[in-house]
Amino acid sequence: MSENRSELSLEAIAATRDRLGDNVITTPALRWQGDELHRIIGSNSEIYVKLELFQRTGTFKARGAMNVMQHLSDEQLQRGITAVSAGNHAIAAAYCAHQVGTHARIFMPKVAKPLRIARARSYGPEIILCDTQTEMFERAEQAEEEEGRTFVHPFEGPLTVQGTATAGLEFSQQVPQLDAMILPIGGGGLCAGFASALKQAWPGVKVFGVEPEGANTMSLSFKEGAPVVLESVSTIADSLAPPRAEPYTFGVCRDVVDEIVLVSDEQLRAAMRTIFYDIKLAVEPAGAAATAALCGPLKGRFSGMRVGVIACGANIELSDFCQLTQTC
Amino acid sequence: MSENRSELSLEAIAATRDRLGDNVITTPALRWQGDELHRIIGSNSEIYVKLELFQRTGTFKARGAMNVMQHLSDEQLQRGITAVSAGNHAIAAAYCAHQVGTHARIFMPKVAKPLRIARARSYGPEIILCDTQTEMFERAEQAEEEEGRTFVHPFEGPLTVQGTATAGLEFSQQVPQLDAMILPIGGGGLCAGFASALKQAWPGVKVFGVEPEGANTMSLSFKEGAPVVLESVSTIADSLAPPRAEPYTFGVCRDVVDEIVLVSDEQLRAAMRTIFYDIKLAVEPAGAAATAALCGPLKGRFSGMRVGVIACGANIELSDFCQLTQTC
Repeated sequence: MSENRSELSLEAIAATRDRLGDNVITTPALRWQGDELHRIIGSNSEIYVKLELFQRTGTFKARGAMNVMQHLSDEQLQRGITAVSAGNHAIAAAYCAHQVGTHARIFMPKVAKPLRIARARSYGPEIILCDTQTEMFERAEQAEEEEGRTFVHPFEGPLTVQGTATAGLEFSQQVPQLDAMILPIGGGGLCAGFASALKQAWPGVKVFGVEPEGANTMSLSFKEGAPVVLESVSTIADSLAPPRAEPYTFGVCRDVVDEIVLVSDEQLRAAMRTIFYDIKLAVEPAGAAATAALCGPLKGRFSGMRVGVIACGANIELSDFCQLTQTC
Repeated sequence: MSENRSELSLEAIAATRDRLGDNVITTPALRWQGDELHRIIGSNSEIYVKLELFQRTGTFKARGAMNVMQHLSDEQLQRGITAVSAGNHAIAAAYCAHQVGTHARIFMPKVAKPLRIARARSYGPEIILCDTQTEMFERAEQAEEEEGRTFVHPFEGPLTVQGTATAGLEFSQQVPQLDAMILPIGGGGLCAGFASALKQAWPGVKVFGVEPEGANTMSLSFKEGAPVVLESVSTIADSLAPPRAEPYTFGVCRDVVDEIVLVSDEQLRAAMRTIFYDIKLAVEPAGAAATAALCGPLKGRFSGMRVGVIACGANIELSDFCQLTQTC
């Protein structure tokens, strides 16, 4: 790593995992068994998958949010937190606030999926549905300024990335040494943390980031050499579609990601089907991104190698799952 | 246990697990995390689930069939095996024959699901599609008599049950001591073996068997005091629908099962949905039977207790999954 980030040393990550305790699950890892994948990519790659969709709240987001909330002072805990999210981060923020005993005011778009609103609500936070992105962010800012609430970011910041790094540390202890790891990038929080842990555990591992074609914020930022803001995003992987990169996460990703590839909506749908048939999991599009890259833009790159992927999100309606995965 | 079956002692089961080696997977076990289930059954039961659907071939069937085939003599291996199945056992028999290097001739009904036929075929056996059940069994018998092939039964016999018992042994080492375990019963091979291991590991554990209402062979056999043959069966859980009980499996189940409950097709569909939403798995109806019992006939029975269930089968077409789980 080009910068010395002591918060992302293996020791710091291991201490974080201990601190998170039973608030998060050490999610299982599996060798990919089904034949569908190997028909696509060939039979001489060994694929391992981190089943992070079994994480509390259904995604890795609980790791970062929990780490942030465990660092709140008593005064901050009394004042509460606030967050903005259309889905997985809202659920995670609500869960973590409940675990540490602080009040959460979470701004979600009115058009958020009812399942995700209901899952966030189930942990007892105050959920406020807004008409526009602008409204959500303005009201969250207001809650910070007027009430002293702590804004819990969905992916940015050392504590968030330190939290997601615990998933990488676990994986490095669960599977044989990998030659490559494929990680989805939305804001980059998962990729930054997970890859930081892996690159220390296995210095030779190559890290491939995956973005949806219609939300390629990080790859554009890499090209620009600085975090960029997109005017609009368009992808079925709604959990991978923040319109902007942020400096800390961008900096870590720049150091630990060897290459970013893009996947289309059709490749995401196909990967959801492959995961259904081979490993019996029902994932949301974002949760299939690493597999989509393996079967799409990265096909043919891993002959004779051991490769890791992650199935990281599964907060999806049954009707949406069936509509997205069925061709007719 | 009322009879002394040395083949089902914990020592014998542990030796079997060692012998099976990497031919089968030590499938993960999880504490059930989602909220959907706990909204149905209440929040003060701890539920643990054995993810046996991650087993090679997609079901526990590989454990029993592999144990049988590992006991074949060189002469038997040369003469090959034969099997009759509409699905999961065909896939397992084909896989295990491939692993031990013997020829498999497998009789499947013409109406078997194309996915299951294709999965069985992928391991290279000879698959013969038949018009009727009678034809399948007659031709398998012929293959035994004329070619000296070994008939590998889908659930009956000490070696098959000893194989499935390894799943129970694993589970007893993966989760805290349980008060109750819920296991689906088709032919009873899974339940007999799994429960035999658990009852030795945890003498106080209560074992509940689950049958589909339209295929209640084992509960009728319990009432009769002897294995019965049904004239017809009718259930969406096609993997739990053998029309007859067999003596060895019946005898073990009688000794290790405390109670059998029945579930309806609607309860199976609802459980598939609950599993989709809570633990992100796409299971076939049979794979949801234990959960269906927990949420249906056994609801309210486990307050303050630790209970185990198993998700044991996932060889299902995407279109069938979506059709069975969606209400509209």
